[in-house]
Amino acid sequence: MLDYCVIKGEVGAAIKAGRPVVALESTVISHGLPYPANIEAAKAMEATVRANGAVPATIAILDGRIRVGLEAEDFERLAAGGIRKVSRRDLPLVLAAGGDGATTVAATMIGARLAGIAVFATGGIGGVHRGAETTLDISADLEELARTDVAVVCAGAKAILDLPKTLEYLETRGVPVVGYGTDNFPAFYTAQCNLPVDSRCDSADDVARVLRAKWQLGLTGGVLIAVPIPEEAALDAEATEQAIRLAVAEAEGQGVRGKELTPFLLARLEQLTEGASLVANRALLLNNAGVAAQIAVAYATLRQ
Amino acid sequence: MLDYCVIKGEVGAAIKAGRPVVALESTVISHGLPYPANIEAAKAMEATVRANGAVPATIAILDGRIRVGLEAEDFERLAAGGIRKVSRRDLPLVLAAGGDGATTVAATMIGARLAGIAVFATGGIGGVHRGAETTLDISADLEELARTDVAVVCAGAKAILDLPKTLEYLETRGVPVVGYGTDNFPAFYTAQCNLPVDSRCDSADDVARVLRAKWQLGLTGGVLIAVPIPEEAALDAEATEQAIRLAVAEAEGQGVRGKELTPFLLARLEQLTEGASLVANRALLLNNAGVAAQIAVAYATLRQ
Amino acid sequence: MLDYCVIKGEVGAAIKAGRPVVALESTVISHGLPYPANIEAAKAMEATVRANGAVPATIAILDGRIRVGLEAEDFERLAAGGIRKVSRRDLPLVLAAGGDGATTVAATMIGARLAGIAVFATGGIGGVHRGAETTLDISADLEELARTDVAVVCAGAKAILDLPKTLEYLETRGVPVVGYGTDNFPAFYTAQCNLPVDSRCDSADDVARVLRAKWQLGLTGGVLIAVPIPEEAALDAEATEQAIRLAVAEAEGQGVRGKELTPFLLARLEQLTEGASLVANRALLLNNAGVAAQIAVAYATLRQ
Ligand SMILES: [Mn+2]
Ligand SMILES: [Mn+2]
Ligand SMILES: [Mn+2]
Repeated sequence: MLDYCVIKGEVGAAIKAGRPVVALESTVISHGLPYPANIEAAKAMEATVRANGAVPATIAILDGRIRVGLEAEDFERLAAGGIRKVSRRDLPLVLAAGGDGATTVAATMIGARLAGIAVFATGGIGGVHRGAETTLDISADLEELARTDVAVVCAGAKAILDLPKTLEYLETRGVPVVGYGTDNFPAFYTAQCNLPVDSRCDSADDVARVLRAKWQLGLTGGVLIAVPIPEEAALDAEATEQAIRLAVAEAEGQGVRGKELTPFLLARLEQLTEGASLVANRALLLNNAGVAAQIAVAYATLRQ
Repeated sequence: MLDYCVIKGEVGAAIKAGRPVVALESTVISHGLPYPANIEAAKAMEATVRANGAVPATIAILDGRIRVGLEAEDFERLAAGGIRKVSRRDLPLVLAAGGDGATTVAATMIGARLAGIAVFATGGIGGVHRGAETTLDISADLEELARTDVAVVCAGAKAILDLPKTLEYLETRGVPVVGYGTDNFPAFYTAQCNLPVDSRCDSADDVARVLRAKWQLGLTGGVLIAVPIPEEAALDAEATEQAIRLAVAEAEGQGVRGKELTPFLLARLEQLTEGASLVANRALLLNNAGVAAQIAVAYATLRQ
Repeated sequence: MLDYCVIKGEVGAAIKAGRPVVALESTVISHGLPYPANIEAAKAMEATVRANGAVPATIAILDGRIRVGLEAEDFERLAAGGIRKVSRRDLPLVLAAGGDGATTVAATMIGARLAGIAVFATGGIGGVHRGAETTLDISADLEELARTDVAVVCAGAKAILDLPKTLEYLETRGVPVVGYGTDNFPAFYTAQCNLPVDSRCDSADDVARVLRAKWQLGLTGGVLIAVPIPEEAALDAEATEQAIRLAVAEAEGQGVRGKELTPFLLARLEQLTEGASLVANRALLLNNAGVAAQIAVAYATLRQ
């Protein structure tokens, strides 16, 4: 394990002392946002985690090692373009080849778990793609949530996905979906869809108690904490859905598939909303980072 | 673990001594049968387990704890209505909130496994819902069978489901399906459908040997023991299928979905069959409890 | 475990000493090829493994025991016809009944893992069947790849399957798909399809490094090593696809399903190609056995 995973000093010390740590992913840097908004957002997320009392640990693969906690120059390198997107299946391939990679939700959960970090903030998880009944295109993030003991704080699943099917998949695989201050599953750019969550929690302490119950019982797997985008940052629901449908149709028409699909849709959406999707994305990322830090603090307190 | 799980004295003593114990679920009490037939059936199942030489342990969640083995007053409480149906994903949510819950097949398997109980009797498992190719509505019971070491004795999957797809799912996930005295998978209210099981066992000893082989080899997961409803209690196959199709169509028309679907269909079926489905349900529940006890006795003997 | 699994002396000694061993399956003998081509191919595979510096261990079930490494007379017995095809779900059933069985990719992986063998050569894995969106017919081999730490060397998935869906399923479940000397997933009888693999490896050493990275990190599950059929042995792509479509249509028309489907399609394909599919199958089996042995040698060296 030691050969393939390097934990930054500050992060390792916090984990060892039982102090709160929040994992952050790197796909948002390499594939989720354009340069230089990506670096700025990544650093703002780390600052938000600190402002809420926890230590940030952005996770990526550099030179064939999982790096838990990055240095300033690492962000530049990940933002430079041409970085491979790394999910569970890609991890051993990139590590064995000594390469670099940006970690998806699934791969970041793996890195967090290896390091002993219980809480992770991201924008939105991957899920069941629209049309998956004929393509079987379902993100490995969902399986990771079923098997790896990490709480994932997000604004729901990426809105380009099929949300009802994503929730059904999570139910089948036994993953609790908690609404943070909401009874309905948030829809990423907008605060609400009509799909209920499994339970509502109104505080970080409530969430921490869920984590303790799950893992103390040995119920393997993650918990999804779905936090609505702040109201002032939310996009118009109908216009967003129309833009998504257009982007999905274009992807189909151009034969965009597999790991290219999500970056294509996000970029197209930014154009169609004239940048508004980008502003919303940044807002929800910072919001999630803050909530995740509060949950990490509450969970660390509970475990003492 | 101890904080969240309480084992009744009689049950714990039997488990510790290696004597046969049979787990029973509580969703049948809170959501499967109407009051007061639900309490009567639950107590009759416990009596049948005892009459066949094993200790019954009905499992439910009360006051934020998994209770393995109930007291008389607990049955009343579970039958009173308004109890949450708890599957794997709900477990940590209800435990953390200190609430009550009726355990599905999946959650009962988890409780049984935590306590060290190898055999569990229920009516019918959840499975792949009709129309799942477009909804992805697939019960968490199937995944639980793939991951948790408990033998589940049932009369097949609930007949409201898509049985061929349910069996395909179990095959993909590596779950053995044993026909108890039958070569075909039983269809809950009726003794037969045209779908073959993986193997036939004609005695409790045969089943016990399957359990020993599976778990001694470390082949994680459950075994499904499918017992046909006693012939004298079986409903007419064609009339039942017609009633199910009508109920499924009504559910679709009224937009009944998710965890409301199964209770809706069972209640509607009772009306459509003028109560006959209820009588059949009770008969198969008692039959399964008896067979499960015999298997528990045989397995306890084999392990000595 | 010892009761149900017997390791041949030569094989056990090699495993204990850390010398390279390659597992081989027995379904190819009992169900994959006609007599006597099946025995000849099985023995030729063992010889090829030896010629490349590793010890072969063909796995089957005989008299209720998993046998890791067979004697000459065992091959005759498996080739005689009427042998049950055994996947994960069937294993405990056949062991408990004291029966014989030919192990599929899934069951052979289980046997290899129990014995401590890391590399396994086969023809093609099972996968998502054509039409699975309505049948849910998906091979247990895919789930086994997700959960069991064995490298499976093959010529891709059996060509009778839906290859794009098979790759999507593997991605969702986090299974690395390595192209051995190729950027595209091989299509069994033909060297190429238009579907990319996750990574290309051009040597056995490269593959060995992937295996070390995966398992040293505790990333549970297998790795699929896809090796194109040797060019001189490959069939014509278009004619093969036509023959497969005809065979699939005939299977549907005749209601051939479940575990009968694959043997039916392979036999029909042999007729439609006037034996050419059989010659190609033998060629790829030997090629895979040789590559697997080289990988086993490289991995054994790396672990020293
Ligand atoms: Mn995908
Ligand atoms: Mn459901
Ligand atoms: Mn199948």
